[in-house]
Amino acid sequence: MGVKVIMGSFKGHALPGTFFIIVGIWWTLKSIVKHACRKHKRASYLGSKALSRRIDIVEGIVLICMALTGMLGEQFIVGGPHLSLYNYKEGQWIQLLGWHHTTMYFFFGLWAVTSILCSTISSLPTSFSKLMFSNALFVEAFVFYNHTHGREILDIFVHQLLVLVVFLSGLVAFIELFTRNNVTVELLRSSFILLQGSWFWQIGFVLYPPSGGPAWDLMNHENIMFLTICFCWHYAFIFIIIGAIYAFVIWLVKSRLNRFCPSEVGLLKSVEREQESEEEM
Amino acid sequence: MGVKVIMGSFKGHALPGTFFIIVGIWWTLKSIVKHACRKHKRASYLGSKALSRRIDIVEGIVLICMALTGMLGEQFIVGGPHLSLYNYKEGQWIQLLGWHHTTMYFFFGLWAVTSILCSTISSLPTSFSKLMFSNALFVEAFVFYNHTHGREILDIFVHQLLVLVVFLSGLVAFIELFTRNNVTVELLRSSFILLQGSWFWQIGFVLYPPSGGPAWDLMNHENIMFLTICFCWHYAFIFIIIGAIYAFVIWLVKSRLNRFCPSEVGLLKSVEREQESEEEM
Amino acid sequence: MGVKVIMGSFKGHALPGTFFIIVGIWWTLKSIVKHACRKHKRASYLGSKALSRRIDIVEGIVLICMALTGMLGEQFIVGGPHLSLYNYKEGQWIQLLGWHHTTMYFFFGLWAVTSILCSTISSLPTSFSKLMFSNALFVEAFVFYNHTHGREILDIFVHQLLVLVVFLSGLVAFIELFTRNNVTVELLRSSFILLQGSWFWQIGFVLYPPSGGPAWDLMNHENIMFLTICFCWHYAFIFIIIGAIYAFVIWLVKSRLNRFCPSEVGLLKSVEREQESEEEM
Amino acid sequence: MGVKVIMGSFKGHALPGTFFIIVGIWWTLKSIVKHACRKHKRASYLGSKALSRRIDIVEGIVLICMALTGMLGEQFIVGGPHLSLYNYKEGQWIQLLGWHHTTMYFFFGLWAVTSILCSTISSLPTSFSKLMFSNALFVEAFVFYNHTHGREILDIFVHQLLVLVVFLSGLVAFIELFTRNNVTVELLRSSFILLQGSWFWQIGFVLYPPSGGPAWDLMNHENIMFLTICFCWHYAFIFIIIGAIYAFVIWLVKSRLNRFCPSEVGLLKSVEREQESEEEM
Repeated sequence: MGVKVIMGSFKGHALPGTFFIIVGIWWTLKSIVKHACRKHKRASYLGSKALSRRIDIVEGIVLICMALTGMLGEQFIVGGPHLSLYNYKEGQWIQLLGWHHTTMYFFFGLWAVTSILCSTISSLPTSFSKLMFSNALFVEAFVFYNHTHGREILDIFVHQLLVLVVFLSGLVAFIELFTRNNVTVELLRSSFILLQGSWFWQIGFVLYPPSGGPAWDLMNHENIMFLTICFCWHYAFIFIIIGAIYAFVIWLVKSRLNRFCPSEVGLLKSVEREQESEEEM
Repeated sequence: MGVKVIMGSFKGHALPGTFFIIVGIWWTLKSIVKHACRKHKRASYLGSKALSRRIDIVEGIVLICMALTGMLGEQFIVGGPHLSLYNYKEGQWIQLLGWHHTTMYFFFGLWAVTSILCSTISSLPTSFSKLMFSNALFVEAFVFYNHTHGREILDIFVHQLLVLVVFLSGLVAFIELFTRNNVTVELLRSSFILLQGSWFWQIGFVLYPPSGGPAWDLMNHENIMFLTICFCWHYAFIFIIIGAIYAFVIWLVKSRLNRFCPSEVGLLKSVEREQESEEEM
Repeated sequence: MGVKVIMGSFKGHALPGTFFIIVGIWWTLKSIVKHACRKHKRASYLGSKALSRRIDIVEGIVLICMALTGMLGEQFIVGGPHLSLYNYKEGQWIQLLGWHHTTMYFFFGLWAVTSILCSTISSLPTSFSKLMFSNALFVEAFVFYNHTHGREILDIFVHQLLVLVVFLSGLVAFIELFTRNNVTVELLRSSFILLQGSWFWQIGFVLYPPSGGPAWDLMNHENIMFLTICFCWHYAFIFIIIGAIYAFVIWLVKSRLNRFCPSEVGLLKSVEREQESEEEM
Repeated sequence: MGVKVIMGSFKGHALPGTFFIIVGIWWTLKSIVKHACRKHKRASYLGSKALSRRIDIVEGIVLICMALTGMLGEQFIVGGPHLSLYNYKEGQWIQLLGWHHTTMYFFFGLWAVTSILCSTISSLPTSFSKLMFSNALFVEAFVFYNHTHGREILDIFVHQLLVLVVFLSGLVAFIELFTRNNVTVELLRSSFILLQGSWFWQIGFVLYPPSGGPAWDLMNHENIMFLTICFCWHYAFIFIIIGAIYAFVIWLVKSRLNRFCPSEVGLLKSVEREQESEEEM
């Protein structure tokens, strides 16, 4: 089947996995750089609102392209549904799993459009973009939750873990509607996005081993016990990566940027830093 | 049965659906107009508290009328319970589903009364009205949750989705108790109300096809898979509608109103806008 | 059995029901009077901190007496466990349901002690008392959740509804840890306490009809459908009662107290009222 | 089996239990001393930031040592997995329960490292440490939730209660991300940590009676009924302990410290105390 060609394969899971990992690392970088600039009171171009807006617009365009590619790919691949939904002759739905994926991509596309509009039109509150992002994640969790009807228990289990992490990232994105410039919450969101990405890879390895060997025993409870901790190891590894990125960015900001743009505020620094740290809590 | 006459039919689902869609669009308009007036610091009549109060009173009266009609309709329709609850002869309850609907209407009526009182009596906190609205939605979710005892799986599934969206709108209404003038949360609430309305229509189409054709196969898992994404498409479509309304209202406020009531605050504008955008987050 | 003598009877449910109804009405009155005094800037004795503390102490003492009576009653009634927990001869637990009730009473006792300490010792934060109250409710919900092992479905259903309302009141009490003088949340909490009380009565009527007639058919699904809306009617009725109390108290404060203690703040009144209404939201 | 040697024994549950009890009591003391110092405006060394940081570093080092010991102990005990995960010969996982425990220890280790880094590097927000703590607890709850596959109902029940308390402490730790110096929330978190510790002991007593007598009947529903209230008694006892510690610390701070370091702020005291009590709410 066409859906199998895209998602029901190792590549079909590696592709979205790679996408989410790239997005996650990009957001981690962005959050930390923003945070470092705020901490060091840089008035440089790097921390300015103008740059931030341009980046958001580029981000949005890339996301729209990806969502469009995903939607078109799901529909017009060989054996795909080609935008037809119901086979009236045989009286059955066509490629519903493909349509599920198209739906998810569409919501991410909606979010990307909102994000671009919020960045270009100043009268639009930026929280609209956050809301649409949270919605896209909740819809993804909802669709995946109703996705694995009648499969094997291990298949269901790995998708349940996916639903869990997608739901949690949606929740954090929703909480972000009510917070501002809270680097901790931003990194938590990034970590969930990264976990989602790496878990997509893991699902690919479990259900469609790229080595060509036999798939895992989908009925074995021991495998569930292992995947439970495997999920945690992914998460631990992600935090180590984020920590490394943090250390690198802070070192970069401190060592390099100090040469070019010495901060003009010197005396007030410690006072302001205090205030900021309070604000963050 | 009498209940079947009202709710157990296409019209019985289209009617409340239409009602919720109208309310949802009305609230979307109201939120956006209010937001636009705040943004543009209009001191015009449109953004004044006096008008806002009058609108709330009219809204409340319309809601009371609707709730009363609903309650009376459920009770005094041909074959309805006519306010009798228990048949002592046969030892069984009379038309419990009809009484379920009456109960829901009653809570919406209670909310409408509170809303009118909060608008007319200035000493009453407006959060009372928000609380009663949230309560009415939670009660609706609770009743629908216990509504579909012993039906087919597809019937239960579409009602579960209804419970989900009603519960979520109740949750957002509860969150609104603690926020103020947050246009994003208000639009989220409106979107859930609209989704509820359009989903009522969908339930009507699924369970009682108006074309007179045979009902859907209520035991088919493929249908559940389709309705999952159908639910998401409703939601996506609603956001597109809300976006269109937003664009239209902003264009209207900017182009038309500027002629009649030039804003008296000019210099302070940008400063205030900054503050406001902070407040919203 | 001894437990049956206390709780497994109509009186055993009417007693705690009456208690919670009295507490609920008392808190409703207190919240509204406090709110009215704040609104009208009364510097009278009625709204003073000294009186508020004395009332809290009296409240705490009454609660301790009730909790002690409950605990002793559960233990030393004819056929009760008499503080013995395990029958080593027969190798089985003694009267575990009685011990369940004792445990709940004990947590309410703990809360009452904390409440008195918080009122007498000024260095103790009042939020301790709120935390213990929330804990007492959560423990009650937890115990009731594990209380109805192996009973009939209707019995389980009415207790599940009890668990629901107790859990919700615990949640509201927990939210109150983070709010202050929010009359809406306080009334919501009172309404749940009242609902708990009236639902205890309803359980008594369902499981042990005082008329001496036969109990309800515990296996009938129609009865579950009815009790669902019955629960809602209780809640609706409670809100009508709270509304009536509100109207009465406001009328009393406005008409009577104006004679004896004319408010000394006149001009600033409207300004302060505005500020207050903002604070409340 | 090796896992049985460590965790599947009375000692294996008493050890982590003792650890959590010590940590819980230590945090209770710390929170109360901090709170007392804030209340009494002590400028003494005891309430200073420098000391607070040093304590955090020592705490972190102790935690790292414990996590390392736990991880190494789980792996290199006689019969343990010795870092090998999969037996390719027999085609099955090795000691997955041991790896589960290793994973939990690892997350606590990650938190300890973050805690030390946040204390030594001033530019790191302290909320990072709180986030990692919350994560460690959520991961622990997640692993325990998937830990008791295919065991007896009583075994599952006591572990479910463990999951409940671990999840709740994770939730409170997450809420602490958004609060500051709120002694009530801090004590609530400590109480859950203490409950976790004492419940570990209880599990040891239930599943592996140290008296050498026969284990409890794992299929008996009466035992579940008893353990429900036993859980509550643990919690009640913990609150009594916390209350005693509170009274002792306050007495100590008031009586002893007054001699050595008379507070330099006298006149402003009452004003500031007012402000503080407001801040706490």
